[in-house]
Amino acid sequence: MKSETVLILSLCISPLAHCQPKPSQTGDMEATKLQQQIQGGRAKNVIFLLGDGMGDSEITAARNYRVGAAGRLAMDMLPFTGEVTTYALQENDPAKPDYVTDSAAGGTAWATGQKTSNGRISTSAGSDKPLKTILEVAKEMGYRTGNITTAEITDATPAVLGAHVNSRACQGPADMKNCPQYKKSAGGPGSIAEQLIDHKIHVLMGGGLQRYQQIIDGGPDEGKNVIASAEAQGYKLITNAQELTEVHLEPQQRLLGLFNDGNMSMEWSGDPAIPYPGSGPQKCKEFVRPANEPGLLSMMMKTIRLLETSESHSPGFFLQVEGAQIDKRAHSAQPCEQIGETIAFDNAIKLALDYAAAHPDTLIIVTADHGHSTQIVPVPTAEVHGPGLMSTLITTDKANMALYYGTNSVCCSSSHNMEHTGTEVRIAAQGPQAFRVLGVHDMSEIYHLMARALGAE
Amino acid sequence: MKSETVLILSLCISPLAHCQPKPSQTGDMEATKLQQQIQGGRAKNVIFLLGDGMGDSEITAARNYRVGAAGRLAMDMLPFTGEVTTYALQENDPAKPDYVTDSAAGGTAWATGQKTSNGRISTSAGSDKPLKTILEVAKEMGYRTGNITTAEITDATPAVLGAHVNSRACQGPADMKNCPQYKKSAGGPGSIAEQLIDHKIHVLMGGGLQRYQQIIDGGPDEGKNVIASAEAQGYKLITNAQELTEVHLEPQQRLLGLFNDGNMSMEWSGDPAIPYPGSGPQKCKEFVRPANEPGLLSMMMKTIRLLETSESHSPGFFLQVEGAQIDKRAHSAQPCEQIGETIAFDNAIKLALDYAAAHPDTLIIVTADHGHSTQIVPVPTAEVHGPGLMSTLITTDKANMALYYGTNSVCCSSSHNMEHTGTEVRIAAQGPQAFRVLGVHDMSEIYHLMARALGAE
Repeated sequence: MKSETVLILSLCISPLAHCQPKPSQTGDMEATKLQQQIQGGRAKNVIFLLGDGMGDSEITAARNYRVGAAGRLAMDMLPFTGEVTTYALQENDPAKPDYVTDSAAGGTAWATGQKTSNGRISTSAGSDKPLKTILEVAKEMGYRTGNITTAEITDATPAVLGAHVNSRACQGPADMKNCPQYKKSAGGPGSIAEQLIDHKIHVLMGGGLQRYQQIIDGGPDEGKNVIASAEAQGYKLITNAQELTEVHLEPQQRLLGLFNDGNMSMEWSGDPAIPYPGSGPQKCKEFVRPANEPGLLSMMMKTIRLLETSESHSPGFFLQVEGAQIDKRAHSAQPCEQIGETIAFDNAIKLALDYAAAHPDTLIIVTADHGHSTQIVPVPTAEVHGPGLMSTLITTDKANMALYYGTNSVCCSSSHNMEHTGTEVRIAAQGPQAFRVLGVHDMSEIYHLMARALGAE
Repeated sequence: MKSETVLILSLCISPLAHCQPKPSQTGDMEATKLQQQIQGGRAKNVIFLLGDGMGDSEITAARNYRVGAAGRLAMDMLPFTGEVTTYALQENDPAKPDYVTDSAAGGTAWATGQKTSNGRISTSAGSDKPLKTILEVAKEMGYRTGNITTAEITDATPAVLGAHVNSRACQGPADMKNCPQYKKSAGGPGSIAEQLIDHKIHVLMGGGLQRYQQIIDGGPDEGKNVIASAEAQGYKLITNAQELTEVHLEPQQRLLGLFNDGNMSMEWSGDPAIPYPGSGPQKCKEFVRPANEPGLLSMMMKTIRLLETSESHSPGFFLQVEGAQIDKRAHSAQPCEQIGETIAFDNAIKLALDYAAAHPDTLIIVTADHGHSTQIVPVPTAEVHGPGLMSTLITTDKANMALYYGTNSVCCSSSHNMEHTGTEVRIAAQGPQAFRVLGVHDMSEIYHLMARALGAE
């Protein structure tokens, strides 16, 4: 808040009093600049970036490690900031909240404007009604659509935009145990993998290849796998970084990028958190992602290019970009992996900001679906330490930062050990309608903000 | 974000299309309203409200319990919101951060604009230089000053505004073990209790009576206790709620309210968090504060009246209001006490907002000095629960909310068991210069924001 004044004063060589700007003058100047950033109206493009499980602790840990406590991430540079409540609803009594959401219920809230119970993909709690998504709205209005993630493309966050099913577990046609009524053989819309394709989203990229290799059990493509069904519906499949670089689409062609059987590979690695005295002090190993897998940034650059170019009659594009494994590596108490994924996500935000610099009619929203278990604590000592898992990292400040994960028992071997938390999370935005994130809002209001920017509300 | 549109549509009885407002119209209307709230210039009054240890989890827990997950606290209603980084510096190498601050270093940052090491009260890390505070700046400019808290008035947060000492432990003249050079008998400025009085702050209120009963060991008041010194310097002492109601000051008189030997009493009570399965499900007992002790709201109402009335030549007032025991009850893993203190603090914020409604030239800032250990987690089960302390509360939503405290070992009997966390924290503001809290700033920048609003920068 001080920087502009310092800058102006430092240009002021004369010691005379009139050389110093009066506070109200510089205040008015900056106030005017901000006033100009408050835009109503419509956005040509909407880029929604979702850091899964990226609460304020997760953001601060990544900032401290990578750019230092006094440094700033790309996500710190958006002009409008606010807080978002994240709670879900109870399945058996949807009038009551479930104070800790998962990514399915959290995603349904921002994607449809309606809250639901944990595990549900854009269907209503208790009553199983499909809830219309912002991507569906955008598509109907002629916007081109993209949906990319570092998880499986059938994971909860990308799923909420283009699928409706009672359980997030129903990712491929062979995974339908929890939702038999949704099977194509039962006359349903099929698994998340099938629904995303049948939605004809223009660009779908992430992991989850094995879901698409499963065999469809009903409908016109019965007996084919989902890849064959996708290709029959105009999708081009790519599966590695080189193909991503080289891919060129014919008009009307769509892109399905599946770069890993499961979730995509990590950007960084390091020692996991362990009980006292914890792992480290350690520096993370960066750039460990296999060269044949693209990173989120490459996927996003290509996606924007594909959404932008052809079909010039389209009003613009809607793009969802998920940094998915901030959440997954917090679940498994792996601080280096978690921070590496946060930084990769931040690089995607930087790309969005660069794009908006050239295309100011772009609405950018950055938020999280829920907080996570990470806590920055004093460096543990024999006298003062928690009973959970911890690791000390040596940051770019050349200082020790202790991260702590304690929300679940340390006894268990599950890879999803630590729990989500129910805290409100940060939202940041710029562009048309972005000012509406100011203050405190519910996750479901993000849908309405985007719908308004698209001209649908 | 949707509410205005819904409201307007609901008034629209005709089915004709022209009856619906175009999004850009309502957008522009709301944008214009926000633009008008962006004010440069000076504030007549500054009310700075500090929720000690009130991170986003602590805020969310209080909201969920008291007004429900979909409800809104007074602090949620301020128009401008941002994030604040909280880290301290290392005492032995002040170029490096200490990622988890205490209230002394955090307070020194917002009070002086300069960062320091943990435990220091408005003195520089390593070099022990006194750092000028915003209250000192305001006083020199003729503003009347107030400093009130629910902790001892000599505790770190109120101390940083009107004392300079190397250790927060040096609260009274008999507590000077860590800072012998500051003793009055050594030619120093004395303890925090003495310095706050010698500063002639107009209104000082909170707990800490026993610090003021200690005997001064040097200077003109040697041999007197600090109360006698205060009275000799024009302070009127009050020690209970009735005296607070009735007190009337002569011109030039100042007020010292000390309502408890130590920290003030809790507003609410309940069962503390314990290991799995945790305490509860419980409802908190409200209104347990003894009637002879005033609450923060009463202290604040009286303080504003006293700062406002006399000395009409004063340009205005500067007031600090601390909700101190949000922090202390998170340390001791007492969720009901913690939430009761958060709600009492929120009531003080409501009063500030009501005051500003009648006096729009008032800058209000609400923030925290650091995050704390509280986490909202799924209701614990035998399979899924953390190794720390937990309690399940029955909220106003008639739903169960599980709070978890795990940042320190559960073995210890210390009343300050749980640890602060290093997360960025929320800031909210309204009034002149308030727009500067947007985005991400360091705690120390709050000083400059307030100095600008006072006309000092």
